[in-house]
Amino acid sequence: MAKRLAVAASDALKADGLRIAELDTSGRPGFVGDKKAGTELLAKRALVLSDLQEKLYANGRSGDKRSVLLVLQGMDTAGKGGIVRHVIGSVDPQGVDHAAFGVPTPEEKRHHFLWRIRKALPRAGQLGVFDRSHYEDVLVVRVHNLVPSTEWEPRYDEINAFERELVDEGVTLVKVAMFVSLDEQKKRLAERLERPDKYWKFNAADIDERAFWPAYQAAYQTMLDRTSTAYAPWHVLPADHKWYSRLAVTELLIEALERLELDWPPATFDVEEQRRRLAQA
Amino acid sequence: MAKRLAVAASDALKADGLRIAELDTSGRPGFVGDKKAGTELLAKRALVLSDLQEKLYANGRSGDKRSVLLVLQGMDTAGKGGIVRHVIGSVDPQGVDHAAFGVPTPEEKRHHFLWRIRKALPRAGQLGVFDRSHYEDVLVVRVHNLVPSTEWEPRYDEINAFERELVDEGVTLVKVAMFVSLDEQKKRLAERLERPDKYWKFNAADIDERAFWPAYQAAYQTMLDRTSTAYAPWHVLPADHKWYSRLAVTELLIEALERLELDWPPATFDVEEQRRRLAQA
Repeated sequence: MAKRLAVAASDALKADGLRIAELDTSGRPGFVGDKKAGTELLAKRALVLSDLQEKLYANGRSGDKRSVLLVLQGMDTAGKGGIVRHVIGSVDPQGVDHAAFGVPTPEEKRHHFLWRIRKALPRAGQLGVFDRSHYEDVLVVRVHNLVPSTEWEPRYDEINAFERELVDEGVTLVKVAMFVSLDEQKKRLAERLERPDKYWKFNAADIDERAFWPAYQAAYQTMLDRTSTAYAPWHVLPADHKWYSRLAVTELLIEALERLELDWPPATFDVEEQRRRLAQA
Repeated sequence: MAKRLAVAASDALKADGLRIAELDTSGRPGFVGDKKAGTELLAKRALVLSDLQEKLYANGRSGDKRSVLLVLQGMDTAGKGGIVRHVIGSVDPQGVDHAAFGVPTPEEKRHHFLWRIRKALPRAGQLGVFDRSHYEDVLVVRVHNLVPSTEWEPRYDEINAFERELVDEGVTLVKVAMFVSLDEQKKRLAERLERPDKYWKFNAADIDERAFWPAYQAAYQTMLDRTSTAYAPWHVLPADHKWYSRLAVTELLIEALERLELDWPPATFDVEEQRRRLAQA
């Protein structure tokens, strides 16, 4: 059985030069094996992720300012929520800073588009997760002309500058754009209309959005072309197979955490002395 | 094998009339079975908890204002973090609002003691967790005379009024006070001094606090006597056995969620119509 992805997930999912119109959303780049093998592997790798996350947390509690931020983007039903539940759900909730970004509130609308984002950044030592993000402001906003192009056009550069700043402050960004096919989306929406325990997830507007698919594809393409940087690269995730998506994001997070070369924080006290004190207390 | 606790966890862990000085912290009230049986049962009950939490979340997304708030109190090493990791860790992180309360910041100190608590209350449909809480203000504050008694004494009544308000707003409070023996605490602190992967959890001040054990017991006793109300009762959890603590808190949360009689939110749209629309989209 595969011990891990055949190649590093970050290589397999590289966004550079990729045309998403040509993406095989049912692909499983970097992984050799079927659903069963993938699911078994995920269970094992989740433990590795959990250990690394605990080290990040431990260092955060010991003065290390670094953090990791998973940014999830994708059309409705792409499986962002499933990533949060099944990947982030495998680590200690104490170490997770989760934020979901919906339609901006009236208050948020009165501020710069990065205002609400800055407020939700992960604290030191935390694994942050953004379910949607600042990228909504060059995706849905662009597709529906919610602001004039003179306003959204400069945002690509603003986002790059913002992310440069985050990286300089010690935030490792793991940006993942999830793509399902139009057919797979139809299947997943249909399921929400078939199962009464899924009705609450259904939103009639999601059907309307399907008419804008080509516009979204173009917006996503520009996003990848203009905001996949060396310091904060995008990963393009074929997401028709949920088990594969979860495994791939787990691998991306493991890679990111391994690059931090975390160790357990050393004792900041005299261990022997404290043992003696404890023996008498 | 036991299918669940032999009696409802809320009955087994009732605080009313209980003298904590006489508590057997190695007890496992309400449960018949050993560690192996308890651990197996926990794995099953975690799935039940996760399903109920998803219903709470679904209803929250559909206009229901209710939420559940787990309040964890206990001396150092009592296992509060383990409850968060292993019990709350079994549900979807999207539905969890976690807050840990340490020494108040200078800003927090300038405000009423409930100020920081109110800011951290769970949103509608969320499972909130307080790792320490407003009760610190009648525990550590009282034991160390951080404010005069004329200031902390009225807090019991203030807390009761505050919690009454929360309950009226739809927050179900699950208050759990965890108790380990002085010996068990010594063992757990010793472990933090033996394992380099645990050094970061060690705090020399925790040893100093052991001298205040009787004062803490008295403060906990008064807390239970004065703030265990019909609308927000305390549960007293013998916590020497971590597996039992986790199982018991899981059961308390399941009970609390079951009392909400949650069902999947009904469709707010014409299902047939949406199916037709989707077929054509």
